Amino acid sequence: MLYEINEKAIRLENQGKKIIRLNLGDPDLPTPREIVEAAYEAMKAGKTKYSSAYGEEKLRQKLAKIHGVKTENVVITPGSKWGIFATLYITMKAGGNIIIPTPYWTAYELMATSLGAQTKLLKTEMEEGWKVDLSKLEAMIDKDTRMIILNNPNNPTSKVMDPDTLDALVEMANRKGVTILSDEVYGPISFIKTKSILEYNGNHTHVLSNGFSKMFTMTGWRVGYIIASKELVDRITQLNQITINNVPVFIQEAALKGLEMQKQLTKTIEKEYEERAKMASKTLAKAGFSFTEPEAPFYIFPKLKGLDSEKFTLDLLDKGVAVAPGTSFGDYREHFRISLTAPRDEIKVGLEKISEAVK
Amino acid sequence: MLYEINEKAIRLENQGKKIIRLNLGDPDLPTPREIVEAAYEAMKAGKTKYSSAYGEEKLRQKLAKIHGVKTENVVITPGSKWGIFATLYITMKAGGNIIIPTPYWTAYELMATSLGAQTKLLKTEMEEGWKVDLSKLEAMIDKDTRMIILNNPNNPTSKVMDPDTLDALVEMANRKGVTILSDEVYGPISFIKTKSILEYNGNHTHVLSNGFSKMFTMTGWRVGYIIASKELVDRITQLNQITINNVPVFIQEAALKGLEMQKQLTKTIEKEYEERAKMASKTLAKAGFSFTEPEAPFYIFPKLKGLDSEKFTLDLLDKGVAVAPGTSFGDYREHFRISLTAPRDEIKVGLEKISEAVK
Repeated sequence: MLYEINEKAIRLENQGKKIIRLNLGDPDLPTPREIVEAAYEAMKAGKTKYSSAYGEEKLRQKLAKIHGVKTENVVITPGSKWGIFATLYITMKAGGNIIIPTPYWTAYELMATSLGAQTKLLKTEMEEGWKVDLSKLEAMIDKDTRMIILNNPNNPTSKVMDPDTLDALVEMANRKGVTILSDEVYGPISFIKTKSILEYNGNHTHVLSNGFSKMFTMTGWRVGYIIASKELVDRITQLNQITINNVPVFIQEAALKGLEMQKQLTKTIEKEYEERAKMASKTLAKAGFSFTEPEAPFYIFPKLKGLDSEKFTLDLLDKGVAVAPGTSFGDYREHFRISLTAPRDEIKVGLEKISEAVK
Repeated sequence: MLYEINEKAIRLENQGKKIIRLNLGDPDLPTPREIVEAAYEAMKAGKTKYSSAYGEEKLRQKLAKIHGVKTENVVITPGSKWGIFATLYITMKAGGNIIIPTPYWTAYELMATSLGAQTKLLKTEMEEGWKVDLSKLEAMIDKDTRMIILNNPNNPTSKVMDPDTLDALVEMANRKGVTILSDEVYGPISFIKTKSILEYNGNHTHVLSNGFSKMFTMTGWRVGYIIASKELVDRITQLNQITINNVPVFIQEAALKGLEMQKQLTKTIEKEYEERAKMASKTLAKAGFSFTEPEAPFYIFPKLKGLDSEKFTLDLLDKGVAVAPGTSFGDYREHFRISLTAPRDEIKVGLEKISEAVK
């Protein structure tokens, strides 16, 4: 449905209709100019050749330093999506199942299905602050469970997992011998501290997925990374060798430039999205929606009792606002997702139209 | 062994030793400046966002026009390697085997093995002009054969398939219901006309893989394409959606720029490599090697009776020249592959050292 809404929005735009696009996690802000210039300089310097399937040494070293791991634990991927797919490709080869708390990014399930792995969904509820029920989770783990995928901070709720729950969850996964794949792509720009899976990860039993898309507004550049055991990093690299070969070196240089300016860039992005989230929260509360306050960019996931989110989303699109129905993130018929990834004045108009639509 | 040689070459270079690198198909020529500028302009214009997993409409249309197919038959991939992997991922899901004439690019087999498919190798011989024996090929096809992979022109021989053999091969594949995947990445810059699989392909039973790496010296940019039935194009796009998402739009704009200048660019590249091939042929013949004259860039695959190519390659590397042993391309112990992808003066010195080594 996420895809269908987007295609319909594009169709309407092509017909000349103005659509306020709050349906995708693709920020309106441009990629910072310094990053563009770094890519251009690298291209001109001839960094346009085949290169290592591990990624560039300099970028791996920088990421290793930031995360407090060794360079051998870092592999660069063409987007974090590829990193997650590659991890599942390798880990789920022999079959088995993956547990995913919901609401969730459905790409996880599409990947698992494509690879012939089973998924088990663990529903969390807004009314419980989106907390993972650990006893339910433990009961779901069986002898074929290979992995738990966490998305922290979460898309679509923008909720950061509370450290106590995460502590207990990791302890339980360790006890059960299940690997956690933690997708922390919104972590570096969250409004409150996100406790990373790496904080538990002395021996790299767990896997961190991250990317530059969200933190430096580099969505279309396709560059991310995995931090994992040397063994998994080597196996992802072998898969890179027979598939994508390498991320263009000039793109890796651009990402490195971003990391060198990280503090400055992420502060700007955080601030902008925190203000957008406040604005949205105020309007949505007034209109009678319930939701948890975003703790990270870019989303808010409001609920209205009795809402048919698919019908609501399609009707809203005809009124010129694209959002995503809750059913695109699991069993959440009364929710919908707003991406605050448009200019503020557009978001404002979008929120007003949303409020009117439920009057 | 290909990989091992390359790693050793890098190690020796890091120790300060000068290595003449004739071991990889990565041209020494820079990416044309116009292509770099097109990428930069696109970045500055904000073409840095998520985009279609099919590829950009403009680029697909241009390729469709060039190849005489519909836009719906074209999908853009991050390198031709990804296009081949994606095709095998989809086609070989239910198991089965793939027939590959040798000498061959071993990436095909690594992909097949990774995906759990079987490969059957059909040896061709220099003495027979690398001709595929059609009766042997037909005898190898069994009920589980899903695909034949052709690399035309071939890496490592730089031989273009003669049209009569190709005609008969396609006729037989059609009769047997086996799909041909034709990797024609060296085709647009071959010295003699390469007959494309698309010339037989009214109903798209067969698949063309191609890329911009070789024709525009864009190896590290990772952009290629598949031309196939709409059904396969749609399925590759679905796989793109859950893996690489999209090739960066600014890279697609750069590739489009290359296509707009194709005649001029490929003429320069062809001419340069044809002259390099002539130079190499002359020296190698004088030194007593046998080989077939290259009909395309970038390789020459000489043979010397009694040669142990792995030992020869390692010894040669110690003398400062990196080439690839014949065993990296199948059962070719007496052959080795020279990539003519270094400046001419380096190639000249390399060829002299090769000649001396077998005196």
